[in-house]
Amino acid sequence: MTTSSAATINVLDKGFVRLVEHMGSDLSIVRNARVSYDADWRSGDGLPEGVSTDPGKDAKLIEYLLKNKHTSPFEAVVFTFEVKAPIFVFRQWHRHRTWSYNEVSARYTELDEGFYVPSVEHITTQSTSNKQMRTTDQHPFAEHIQQVIESECQTAHGVYQNLILKGCPRELARAVLPGAAYSRMMATCNLHNLLHNFIPLRMHSHAQYEIRVYAQAIYALLHTIVPVTVEAYSRLNDDYKRS
Amino acid sequence: MTTSSAATINVLDKGFVRLVEHMGSDLSIVRNARVSYDADWRSGDGLPEGVSTDPGKDAKLIEYLLKNKHTSPFEAVVFTFEVKAPIFVFRQWHRHRTWSYNEVSARYTELDEGFYVPSVEHITTQSTSNKQMRTTDQHPFAEHIQQVIESECQTAHGVYQNLILKGCPRELARAVLPGAAYSRMMATCNLHNLLHNFIPLRMHSHAQYEIRVYAQAIYALLHTIVPVTVEAYSRLNDDYKRS
Amino acid sequence: MTTSSAATINVLDKGFVRLVEHMGSDLSIVRNARVSYDADWRSGDGLPEGVSTDPGKDAKLIEYLLKNKHTSPFEAVVFTFEVKAPIFVFRQWHRHRTWSYNEVSARYTELDEGFYVPSVEHITTQSTSNKQMRTTDQHPFAEHIQQVIESECQTAHGVYQNLILKGCPRELARAVLPGAAYSRMMATCNLHNLLHNFIPLRMHSHAQYEIRVYAQAIYALLHTIVPVTVEAYSRLNDDYKRS
Amino acid sequence: MTTSSAATINVLDKGFVRLVEHMGSDLSIVRNARVSYDADWRSGDGLPEGVSTDPGKDAKLIEYLLKNKHTSPFEAVVFTFEVKAPIFVFRQWHRHRTWSYNEVSARYTELDEGFYVPSVEHITTQSTSNKQMRTTDQHPFAEHIQQVIESECQTAHGVYQNLILKGCPRELARAVLPGAAYSRMMATCNLHNLLHNFIPLRMHSHAQYEIRVYAQAIYALLHTIVPVTVEAYSRLNDDYKRS
Repeated sequence: MTTSSAATINVLDKGFVRLVEHMGSDLSIVRNARVSYDADWRSGDGLPEGVSTDPGKDAKLIEYLLKNKHTSPFEAVVFTFEVKAPIFVFRQWHRHRTWSYNEVSARYTELDEGFYVPSVEHITTQSTSNKQMRTTDQHPFAEHIQQVIESECQTAHGVYQNLILKGCPRELARAVLPGAAYSRMMATCNLHNLLHNFIPLRMHSHAQYEIRVYAQAIYALLHTIVPVTVEAYSRLNDDYKRS
Repeated sequence: MTTSSAATINVLDKGFVRLVEHMGSDLSIVRNARVSYDADWRSGDGLPEGVSTDPGKDAKLIEYLLKNKHTSPFEAVVFTFEVKAPIFVFRQWHRHRTWSYNEVSARYTELDEGFYVPSVEHITTQSTSNKQMRTTDQHPFAEHIQQVIESECQTAHGVYQNLILKGCPRELARAVLPGAAYSRMMATCNLHNLLHNFIPLRMHSHAQYEIRVYAQAIYALLHTIVPVTVEAYSRLNDDYKRS
Repeated sequence: MTTSSAATINVLDKGFVRLVEHMGSDLSIVRNARVSYDADWRSGDGLPEGVSTDPGKDAKLIEYLLKNKHTSPFEAVVFTFEVKAPIFVFRQWHRHRTWSYNEVSARYTELDEGFYVPSVEHITTQSTSNKQMRTTDQHPFAEHIQQVIESECQTAHGVYQNLILKGCPRELARAVLPGAAYSRMMATCNLHNLLHNFIPLRMHSHAQYEIRVYAQAIYALLHTIVPVTVEAYSRLNDDYKRS
Repeated sequence: MTTSSAATINVLDKGFVRLVEHMGSDLSIVRNARVSYDADWRSGDGLPEGVSTDPGKDAKLIEYLLKNKHTSPFEAVVFTFEVKAPIFVFRQWHRHRTWSYNEVSARYTELDEGFYVPSVEHITTQSTSNKQMRTTDQHPFAEHIQQVIESECQTAHGVYQNLILKGCPRELARAVLPGAAYSRMMATCNLHNLLHNFIPLRMHSHAQYEIRVYAQAIYALLHTIVPVTVEAYSRLNDDYKRS
């Protein structure tokens, strides 16, 4: 388990991903896989049995498991992250149903984590070739658009605070908060679902920039805990590299 | 399968729940349960075998299954709903991970389904006894609060449309849309998860009014398809009745 | 919904797969996908809105969804099968956690559905190249092995019946039943999980013959309900064709 | 993470449950819950923030979460167990779809972990009041029944070994193995699913004795890691106490 502040990566203008806790390692994956695939392995005494002392052999097994979709050994490695991100990013994130989420409740407490203002270089033009994407060409009025977004968010946040001052219930006042408002959550997911679902989809070049940077931060944190697996995965997958 | 427009219930000021498709019935539950629990049942010829011709006996079996948490027979009855609701309601809804969701993509298309404005009688005061709730006492400035929410949503929606007119990418422009903005989705869930999870939690008196009315609409639609089960469930559960 | 006995396919010597109920069609997939991806689509009146009258266009959309891993529209098509198979096949089947199962309870009732005896041509030799597989070369003593398996299963089944006659509890007597003993279940799964998980894994050439034939039967039944999807899937996937 | 052999509990005549790894603690539950429910909590520096220094207060929060079905904080505590149990016990166990399983593959390796022989005092009579259960009254011919089960299992196991010696593929030979044959697996599950699903169902007085003792072993191991939660849970639940 790690709770060192070293495991925090800042994302966007005010967000972050922090690795709060984790279970397992590259060795856990090998140990779980060997139950199914290694006739010779016997256990019970609590030592990391059946783990060859040859790291190269373990790396080969992990790559074999990834390549042949033997997914269950990767479900024995689990991570809890703390994430601060804009609501419109959480809206995409929460569509992943294999995570466990504990998010700040805006019914229970006033939301005042600020809001996301895109940097000028990320304010590009609407893609016409791919209807859901934006291009990488900076928008001619990028600075103006940035000001419009920022001032509208400031207005909305002011109205929100005012409603609460007037005694408007928090659960109703939040109706005026923009998608750019930051929220915070604790989120737990196992390595299989991260590598099979969240990472390829959200690190993909077609993913929106604002969630892709969170997926990249998580991928970097995974690498610190299961380097052998992440490197094997990276050799086998290319999509997200195009990002 | 039903796609009759009769199966649409209007909710809040602009929302609705529509039963799009469903699979199964009270008889399906009996048929599934009898595989596990009835030695005498034999099948294969496609008739609704093992279904006693005594409806009272079937009702007793369904009540027994609910009471004794034999949940799997209820997983064989499935519903697809079309739902139009405010984004802050979808935010709560999507935390239920046993549904399948297909929501309008605001990256792909401009969101222009309007926004939710609470009616004056539902603008009450913040509860102090239960930090997450609002009371049932109308707020002294309810009308003023309603105007503030409506005008802020109008402003935000205007800014949103303006950004899109200026060629701001849709996926960025949505950052200014308020939680009150309506979205639309198709959502599929089985009867077990509806009765075990969504209905008791979201029809509960502690649930926010704005999602409770959607849960009540779904409960009413369930009753049209599996009346025996819903009535047995209703006899066994009281929480949501306090709502 | 179909419960016609026409939807029954016999498998192995005494097993079968029967399509009991289903929800949805190729059109449902198109309808669900269009909510997310089609700005022009508007609905509410219960007609199959937004479904182009050009089947070719629908087929292209379905192939696009499969190719680009837009999986949720396929979760709105659901099937309930009745399956009779040997216990060692159910042991593999039940590892798929996205199905709902209602199996005959051997605590509640005596299991007397017979047992599986492999046909001589399927009694081949242990593979040495792939430690988990058998070859396609008939075993020199295939007939002898068949007799040994059959007589041992007969012995075990006789002991089982005897124990029950003596008043041994069913839940204990079943401890002597062999993996070849047939059991029966109702099993419900959605189309996404079938095409993403069960079909590629169990129709794969590396899957054991005795479960592969069940996967093939299910694949044939799927084709009768969602032919456009199954044909698009078949064009995109090759693994199981090597089986 | 613990891999100490101290965390092994022997079950039945040859089985065991071993706690291999775990993530989290009672404090993790408090920390996750406080994100949602505590306005005052701020984080990012990696300390166990927002964890009151008053253990009594934490215990009250955990009991509140259990009582009010705030389940997600308990999903952030995860356990991996190694389990050796008879196949007929695994057959019940694997119906729990919220676990991750890595079981010895009898296609890949010969199964020779022995088989379960019930002790004489647990060979009772078939219940007539509850069709699925056995009574607690020892069977008049308990010793005879024990011998019949043991000798049949020995016969079957001998036939199995013989088939493999003759070169019968492992995946076919296993068809003669009885449900009493021991298998082994690594199994991972989070605390919410353990306390909500596996423990109440399998520690319940209606559960079969042979799986109830495994549930009791797991419950004892949980108590060593999350004592505050297990004691609060135990105060709130009574079913399994009747066992």
